[in-house]
Amino acid sequence: MSVFGFEERELASLVRSVRPERPGADAPDGSLADEFAALVWTSIAEPGDRVCGALTRALGPGLALRLLIERVEPERIAAEVEAREATGEPRPALVAALRDALDRWQPRISARLAVRAIEQAARFRVGAILPQDPDWPRGLDDLGESAPAALWFRGDVERFRWFARSVAVVGARASTGYGDHVAAELTAGLGDRGVAIVSGGAYGIDGVAHRTALASDARTVAILAGGLDRFYPSGHDALLTRVAADGLVIAEVPCGTSPTRWRFLQRNRVLAAATIATIVVEAGARSGSLNTAGHAAQLGRRLGAVPGPVTSAASAGCHRLLREFDADCITSVDDALELAGLDVTEPGSAVDPAPRTDPPDVVRVLDALSPRQPMDAMSVAAAAGMSLGDVLAVLGPLELEGRARESERGWLRSTTVAT
Amino acid sequence: MSVFGFEERELASLVRSVRPERPGADAPDGSLADEFAALVWTSIAEPGDRVCGALTRALGPGLALRLLIERVEPERIAAEVEAREATGEPRPALVAALRDALDRWQPRISARLAVRAIEQAARFRVGAILPQDPDWPRGLDDLGESAPAALWFRGDVERFRWFARSVAVVGARASTGYGDHVAAELTAGLGDRGVAIVSGGAYGIDGVAHRTALASDARTVAILAGGLDRFYPSGHDALLTRVAADGLVIAEVPCGTSPTRWRFLQRNRVLAAATIATIVVEAGARSGSLNTAGHAAQLGRRLGAVPGPVTSAASAGCHRLLREFDADCITSVDDALELAGLDVTEPGSAVDPAPRTDPPDVVRVLDALSPRQPMDAMSVAAAAGMSLGDVLAVLGPLELEGRARESERGWLRSTTVAT
Repeated sequence: MSVFGFEERELASLVRSVRPERPGADAPDGSLADEFAALVWTSIAEPGDRVCGALTRALGPGLALRLLIERVEPERIAAEVEAREATGEPRPALVAALRDALDRWQPRISARLAVRAIEQAARFRVGAILPQDPDWPRGLDDLGESAPAALWFRGDVERFRWFARSVAVVGARASTGYGDHVAAELTAGLGDRGVAIVSGGAYGIDGVAHRTALASDARTVAILAGGLDRFYPSGHDALLTRVAADGLVIAEVPCGTSPTRWRFLQRNRVLAAATIATIVVEAGARSGSLNTAGHAAQLGRRLGAVPGPVTSAASAGCHRLLREFDADCITSVDDALELAGLDVTEPGSAVDPAPRTDPPDVVRVLDALSPRQPMDAMSVAAAAGMSLGDVLAVLGPLELEGRARESERGWLRSTTVAT
Repeated sequence: MSVFGFEERELASLVRSVRPERPGADAPDGSLADEFAALVWTSIAEPGDRVCGALTRALGPGLALRLLIERVEPERIAAEVEAREATGEPRPALVAALRDALDRWQPRISARLAVRAIEQAARFRVGAILPQDPDWPRGLDDLGESAPAALWFRGDVERFRWFARSVAVVGARASTGYGDHVAAELTAGLGDRGVAIVSGGAYGIDGVAHRTALASDARTVAILAGGLDRFYPSGHDALLTRVAADGLVIAEVPCGTSPTRWRFLQRNRVLAAATIATIVVEAGARSGSLNTAGHAAQLGRRLGAVPGPVTSAASAGCHRLLREFDADCITSVDDALELAGLDVTEPGSAVDPAPRTDPPDVVRVLDALSPRQPMDAMSVAAAAGMSLGDVLAVLGPLELEGRARESERGWLRSTTVAT
């Protein structure tokens, strides 16, 4: 099957340049065109385009693209879709959605654009992973029709397996020293336990997360909103280059694509969907991290937020997540592991499971006893408001525990053991 | 009906000395003995004694006390109780509980003790309020058999009505500057809205709450664990004297009773039950405020906790309440009012209800537009991945809103309005 008039050999060469491990020659018939087309679709449709998702899922990326190139009428495309699967959408709605989509895609359907994206990827050592690949993050399937057609990446493709044990650690660009400190502690602790730290590569919390992970030899993945030929923000070029070397840097859009607000918002859905849980460390009341958190909640992913001073604007978004999104309050690495349903290998660090509570009778007898003034058991009973028998039943064990002692002149509370 | 051999006239004089507004003479038959006995019961039973509660509820405080004084057998007392109401407890269990209770009460059943408690109260201008009084805080009824038989107080009895619109603001004795600041802000804000601030009179958060309420002419109530003849802690004597003058100071135990650990724990149940909601501002992992919070949760009262830095030990208890007790995250006065189900008279202060979200098409067009480089609509459509028609449909409204403008050479994004 030819696409854009390319021959099989040309398609194989293009695909192989970004997917070296897939020879293409011995792939099943048509799969080469599908692989090529999936990459082309990342140039045509904006991230999160549901019509693209519906079309490529129903027809396969190759056929879907060919119908576009051949300018087939929306009615006929809809008939093709219906012939293959029930879309759930009534025919006129599908035709209308397709008509709109064809309008917006048309300016971007170009062999030149497609080839340039792949050539640039090859030049920047950017690879591509597709939903049918074994290492594709399966969490992305939960995005349904808005799932990416492909992902571009820099790094070792096998590191995509890290997503199976990964947490998104995100937060404000304008982070505070407090937020940076907590982000570093969480990242180092999670990293030590083999959890991959996934973030957005931005300044502030994201940067601290990546940097701490690298410094502690932990796994880290950056998911960016723009193409991987030029890292954004440029001030993080060195950091993201190191992430690409030791971990992974990922984008849904091809090389040459600038990050826009829309693409940041859509990148956030990938962050939330690919990971097991999302933790927001610091976020202003309107921070983009709240968007990631919203995606996580919508996808049924576990959501955590680190509290901070209520006087700090940089924690206002986290508190909003605690109040309105039922986010878990994350105060320690163990809290984060518990959130993600991962094994907690050490006993609770920040907070004891429960303060020791003495039974009422013990509390009352200890209240009644003095550390200096010896008392006979009857006086203890009167002071404690208890019967003599009950008092004696308590004094015995307390003496064994070293919390009370009987002197010649009566009972005393021991002061060596904290009560 | 005589109690301890006192005649009606003597009982009336004693009761009147702490309940000046109740003449007693025109009270229904037996009510004087019941009133006197209720006060005596606060000397006999420790706070929270369920057997005392069951007995005085079934028989009335007067008859219950008389049976005790006359050393009636537990079997016969149980029969009296059963004759009046189904207690839910099987007969042998009730008899056993009574036998234990009689043992522990016996050392405190004394006319001398009872009279001394009342005389001391009168000397210190301490009054008594009983469950049948109109101003009794009805929230205490939720304590069932562990409800207090009476409350001792200093201040104007009518101020008990404040509990109908009250919040317990409690926290660590070892509070930080942050906690003190938040406690003061919350207290002043709630006080301004006519909410009574109820606390425990302790150092730290409690003290800040009372002090701020007094300074802002707000209503405040202190509930103490010891008798009202001597305020505890002694360092808060001047503060609690002012609370008594402008508000209320309350204790369940009579004058001459020292505060013990048991009484602190039981005082906490009164704090939680009498108020609409409990807010813990700061609390270490083992703070007594967690006990108050536990009572509030158990009683179905709304529970709030103020978050703080996860690096602060003084906030560990609050975070535990957020994690384990499903406490509401309290960041502002409005959060506190919402918690208590009280009217929020001003719009949200700390956090905006929702960040403004533009529809996807608007986001994409704004992304595509440049503030400096004019673009024709077709170029905008290609950059935004949208059809020309959709782009034009968005540009019109954006121009009206002043967020985009058309120059001679094409469309520009306006920079004067934040997007």
